[in-house]
Amino acid sequence: MTSRSKIPRPTVKRLSLYLRDLESRREQEQQTISSQQLGDALGLTDAQVRKDLAYFGQFGHPGIGYHVQELIAELRKIFGTDRKWSAAVVGAGNIGRAVMAYPRFRHKGFEIVAVFDNNPNVIGQVISGHRVRPMDDLPALVGARDIKIGILAVPAETAQAVTDVLIDAGILGILNFAPVRLDVRDAVSITSVDFSVALEQLAFQVSLGLTGSLDEQEE
Amino acid sequence: MTSRSKIPRPTVKRLSLYLRDLESRREQEQQTISSQQLGDALGLTDAQVRKDLAYFGQFGHPGIGYHVQELIAELRKIFGTDRKWSAAVVGAGNIGRAVMAYPRFRHKGFEIVAVFDNNPNVIGQVISGHRVRPMDDLPALVGARDIKIGILAVPAETAQAVTDVLIDAGILGILNFAPVRLDVRDAVSITSVDFSVALEQLAFQVSLGLTGSLDEQEE
Repeated sequence: MTSRSKIPRPTVKRLSLYLRDLESRREQEQQTISSQQLGDALGLTDAQVRKDLAYFGQFGHPGIGYHVQELIAELRKIFGTDRKWSAAVVGAGNIGRAVMAYPRFRHKGFEIVAVFDNNPNVIGQVISGHRVRPMDDLPALVGARDIKIGILAVPAETAQAVTDVLIDAGILGILNFAPVRLDVRDAVSITSVDFSVALEQLAFQVSLGLTGSLDEQEE
Repeated sequence: MTSRSKIPRPTVKRLSLYLRDLESRREQEQQTISSQQLGDALGLTDAQVRKDLAYFGQFGHPGIGYHVQELIAELRKIFGTDRKWSAAVVGAGNIGRAVMAYPRFRHKGFEIVAVFDNNPNVIGQVISGHRVRPMDDLPALVGARDIKIGILAVPAETAQAVTDVLIDAGILGILNFAPVRLDVRDAVSITSVDFSVALEQLAFQVSLGLTGSLDEQEE
């Protein structure tokens, strides 16, 4: 297995596409899959698929291809989604509340263990079972509750300042909902959710007259 | 130019990656780009890049490659994001309110022109400048206000019923925030925003020790 920091970023991106494709095949009870099939579904050559997966070990079986269930389990191990992740929500506004109420997080191994805000009118409120705490409590709680992930749901204007607090507190990753590019000083991982990118993709599908979802299996 | 319904879906997906990459290069004031450079950034061969773009016309210049600004303009035309789209929000809960307050939508050519909910306590309220209307008003308003896109921000339990109402009203695309797979009867386009997919990708980056964002330019 290659040193993980040597894995090309495009490969990393494609792994999550592989995982989503495989999970949807498992739902349809497909047992095995060839690199050709996986490549066809994602617009890649079979050689690219084999090369990408080989960074992480030898999963294929000659003459069979990959066992769908086995490959999902291996990918989940690589992804770290077979373990539990403690997360904190910063910002108890609309997006923060939506995140707290989101039913799929716990199911996927993420647990929200603390919620912070700087608004005195919101601090102390209990939302979806979480008491909102002042920002000043954040550094101590990140350590005490082993919080690895910060979910940033604050306005664009304060997002960078909160990011700095999260990094200094020792968080490892930030899920950013603020519509702004953040400087993470190459210290933590960051993934941004930009609603307008999704809306743009939808406009594109409508313009091209493509019905259904781009993310579902093709027939 | 090929008939649009003949364009492979993986190509369609890659076009939005091309556009995001090009926009970030334009921010860095890059003037021209080769298919090789674009391919390298996204883990594709230069042949694949040229083939994808050729579905839409001849954009390249021999010996120069593509003009970044020109290719962005062409892609935006294909994407339909050079025009205005009227959208309706269904569900004035946390996600609906977050969407209404989202600053980037209007900037990208999307305008929210109506908001609907079925909760009598919410109907009539004014949120981010929009008066919340009862669901019964939806079919007439979709026609009257030329609404093409429905933003679905209702709980999973009611999402399918609302989808059916939107389709029957003549909407063309649905941006789905409900954590459930919807049947759109192959009648409209749909894009789903799943927060847990983003969180999963983040956990993956953290597991691999990849700092920064996967979506930014590599150096």
